[in-house]
Amino acid sequence: MERIGVGLLGLGTVGTGVYKALRNNQDVLLRRTGQLFEVRKILVRDPYKTRQVEGVQFLITTDFHEVLQSGVQVVIEVIGGLESAYAYVRDALTAGCHVVTANKELIAKRGKELEALARQKGVQLLYEAAVGGGIPVLGSIGYLLKANRVHRITGILNGTTNYILTEMEQKGLAFDEVLRESQEKGYAEADPSSDVDGHDAKYKLAILARLAFEAEISLEDIPCRGIRGVTSQDITLARRLGYAIKLLAQAEQYGEKGPISLRVGPALLPENHPLAGVNGVHNAVTLEGDWVQDVTLVGQGAGEQPTASAVVEDVGNVLRLPRISGSTVEHPPVLSGAEEGGSRFVVVETEALPGLAGAASLRDKLEQINLEVEQIGTASFGSSTVLGLVLCHWNASYTNILLAELGIEVKRLEHYPVIGVRKKDRVKEAVVTG
Amino acid sequence: MERIGVGLLGLGTVGTGVYKALRNNQDVLLRRTGQLFEVRKILVRDPYKTRQVEGVQFLITTDFHEVLQSGVQVVIEVIGGLESAYAYVRDALTAGCHVVTANKELIAKRGKELEALARQKGVQLLYEAAVGGGIPVLGSIGYLLKANRVHRITGILNGTTNYILTEMEQKGLAFDEVLRESQEKGYAEADPSSDVDGHDAKYKLAILARLAFEAEISLEDIPCRGIRGVTSQDITLARRLGYAIKLLAQAEQYGEKGPISLRVGPALLPENHPLAGVNGVHNAVTLEGDWVQDVTLVGQGAGEQPTASAVVEDVGNVLRLPRISGSTVEHPPVLSGAEEGGSRFVVVETEALPGLAGAASLRDKLEQINLEVEQIGTASFGSSTVLGLVLCHWNASYTNILLAELGIEVKRLEHYPVIGVRKKDRVKEAVVTG
Ligand SMILES: NC(=O)c1ccc[n+]([C@@H]2O[C@H](COP(=O)([O-])OP(=O)(O)OC[C@H]3O[C@@H](n4cnc5c(N)ncnc54)[C@H](OP(=O)(O)O)[C@@H]3O)[C@@H](O)[C@H]2O)c1
Ligand SMILES: NC(=O)c1ccc[n+]([C@@H]2O[C@H](COP(=O)([O-])OP(=O)(O)OC[C@H]3O[C@@H](n4cnc5c(N)ncnc54)[C@H](OP(=O)(O)O)[C@@H]3O)[C@@H](O)[C@H]2O)c1
Repeated sequence: MERIGVGLLGLGTVGTGVYKALRNNQDVLLRRTGQLFEVRKILVRDPYKTRQVEGVQFLITTDFHEVLQSGVQVVIEVIGGLESAYAYVRDALTAGCHVVTANKELIAKRGKELEALARQKGVQLLYEAAVGGGIPVLGSIGYLLKANRVHRITGILNGTTNYILTEMEQKGLAFDEVLRESQEKGYAEADPSSDVDGHDAKYKLAILARLAFEAEISLEDIPCRGIRGVTSQDITLARRLGYAIKLLAQAEQYGEKGPISLRVGPALLPENHPLAGVNGVHNAVTLEGDWVQDVTLVGQGAGEQPTASAVVEDVGNVLRLPRISGSTVEHPPVLSGAEEGGSRFVVVETEALPGLAGAASLRDKLEQINLEVEQIGTASFGSSTVLGLVLCHWNASYTNILLAELGIEVKRLEHYPVIGVRKKDRVKEAVVTG
Repeated sequence: MERIGVGLLGLGTVGTGVYKALRNNQDVLLRRTGQLFEVRKILVRDPYKTRQVEGVQFLITTDFHEVLQSGVQVVIEVIGGLESAYAYVRDALTAGCHVVTANKELIAKRGKELEALARQKGVQLLYEAAVGGGIPVLGSIGYLLKANRVHRITGILNGTTNYILTEMEQKGLAFDEVLRESQEKGYAEADPSSDVDGHDAKYKLAILARLAFEAEISLEDIPCRGIRGVTSQDITLARRLGYAIKLLAQAEQYGEKGPISLRVGPALLPENHPLAGVNGVHNAVTLEGDWVQDVTLVGQGAGEQPTASAVVEDVGNVLRLPRISGSTVEHPPVLSGAEEGGSRFVVVETEALPGLAGAASLRDKLEQINLEVEQIGTASFGSSTVLGLVLCHWNASYTNILLAELGIEVKRLEHYPVIGVRKKDRVKEAVVTG
């Protein structure tokens, strides 16, 4: 039996879970790793706060140096934020400690530098909890799919927005309303921007793509749109045509060491896609590799227990598993304009659709001007009519052509990429109106 | 760079994929593991057969000893069957080789003995491909969820039966018809028993439960029912009530080192369960652990490429990752009668349902005799009427009570466990008739 000293930075939601999991599952870890993990110090901001767990008071400090001086081999960072967390992680690595963190922002922004430091010091830096909460997706890529060339990643990486979209669909409510309710229930932060504008998903996508493609991804290379523009009408109409709308994080590499395209934004998935049924606060990632084909991992993307699970799994691996090979390509070619070429769901909200003698004639009309229409649906909501079109081979000029052709007054226009459709998968070929 | 000699036993579907994957992804493995894997000998039965891959002729042998004498550190067994495979694996381990196998029957029946031998010889025995094809489920349990107590496993572990059930539902065809078509397409074996009677799923469940619960599971402890009794009527009626019928493999442990219950058989899943949407040849496993809560892995359960992927991933790990801790409990207490207590879908096929003035009165009638009815549905198919009841707190005496109460002539009676329903999940509470 080996005794391993652990320093815990942060005792909030995740830190409390980590402390409890290390204590309650100490026997399991000991049996399976031969190592006994002992928390020696816990760093917090406010030493007077009442804590949720018993017996921690004598471990608590507000002085980071006390943590390093307490004989720890592993430091766990679950403070969050950028600058303090960065300084602590850097200093812990410099002092020769292994580090486990749940901090996606830190790894997305400073991961490259911190990993270089860890390598130089001969220690490990693990961050499974930073992506997909409890879902062991980084470990899957790094240890269990390492003989594969993973060439595509498609993920639902933010639980808050997935919960909001699910509620909007199930209750037919507007975004603002559901957001407010989610804030009241504690499912969304007081400042929801990081979630609803897609930044949180972007950080996670950068981390995933970096590992899978072994290339440095800069956050500026990820076009990012949130869900504020999604309406429950769009969700309803998409559903009638056989699709779910999800906030998707997507990364694709065209050939080994080839160009990479990345994006975060709301998109349509056919109902039989493995991610289409992932609802509520669940997260999920589909990985496509050259041999394994597709593997989808679904689980709890946040919360005290699942996040603590991922942290503690890393703690159990940090001294046992070999280093995951790092990124080898500094500045991979990045494809922009990845938004074009595929299928697109275009939604036009209008007072009425005059002069359109039904969906079939609209299809003919649009096909005459070379817009290839895959599906058409319309729906009325109060005084508005919403027309939804799935168009093939989308390009940006389509919008103007479409509007000119329709000759209607447009109250709102929105468009979404449609992904993962193969001809044979298509669920509803027919024109749906109603 | 380290050169590792590999011996390949078998060059059929999986063996061909393994040879190609090792050749095509040699660079990936070298970069990520620092090891170069070289196939030195390939054992087959028929040396004159034309092979699908180029350049293998000079590697082929029919003499197992030539394989061991060719300086190999890793032996891959993808022959299948029990006795020869057993002898080869045993001899390879005895000779100090690491072994990777895709053979579920071998591991389910002789895994205990072979693992003891491997431990004694200081080598590894890995078998990721034996369960769930390309899905890295054993690695997930062994390396990525090892700080968790996994207490429940629910899996769709056989692609052939999942394909058949999906086709029966989508085309409304009978089991026999779909089986015949599947055989023609090569999705089912000429002798389909191992798949359709549930044995294949049983082997896989035994392997999963053994690893997750760290306990020896004997195959006799797994009650096993196949899908021959499932009709497309049952599937249709279940769907109307909000459920999918799947061939499920389930294992649950009640408390650490506590009693275990196991079963393989068709069961109902609520439509929003992560496994309910897993269709066609896909496999999937939901693992529930004390900290991670639930993780579901979905992917290709068979086929040349995904199976080869899992084999080659094991090959890349066999010399690098520590041994997964073995089973520690020899004869765990096994709960029988696990079939009772939960909810149950009872299907009664009859000529007509005389004297039943509608579903609501039937519910009252049954509740008067203390059968708690959760849902009722009826459907007509040709000259038959099928009545489906979801009953709570099932126990075996219900069938007789029910039949006596109905007082109808029963043409067929079938019942299925209903799993994964929590009150808040229930999709269709209402009585459905039609
Ligand atoms: N919550 C989740 O579900 C979840 C999921 C995945 C990843 N994460 C990540 O996990 C990390 C922690 O999240 P959380 O939800 O646990 O946060 P939290 O509840 O706000 O807890 C933060 C903890 O860090 C301490 N702290 C903050 N700034 C500090 C500083 N400068 N020096 C010392 N201690 C400081 C706080 O001390 P006091 O207690 O004294 O205030 C508190 O104990 C974040 O990176 C987050 O992105 C969270
Ligand atoms: N197929 C799948 O999708 C899949 C998925 C998961 C796991 N598996 C498992 O993988 C294993 C192999 O399956 P497979 O589909 O590849 O089988 P297969 O196509 O029938 O190939 C078997 C290979 O083993 C050789 N062989 C058979 N008996 C032998 C013996 N006594 N001595 C030497 N060579 C022998 C055969 O030689 P010849 O070529 O000379 O006949 C053939 O090359 C099985 O354990 C199976 O359960 C398969």
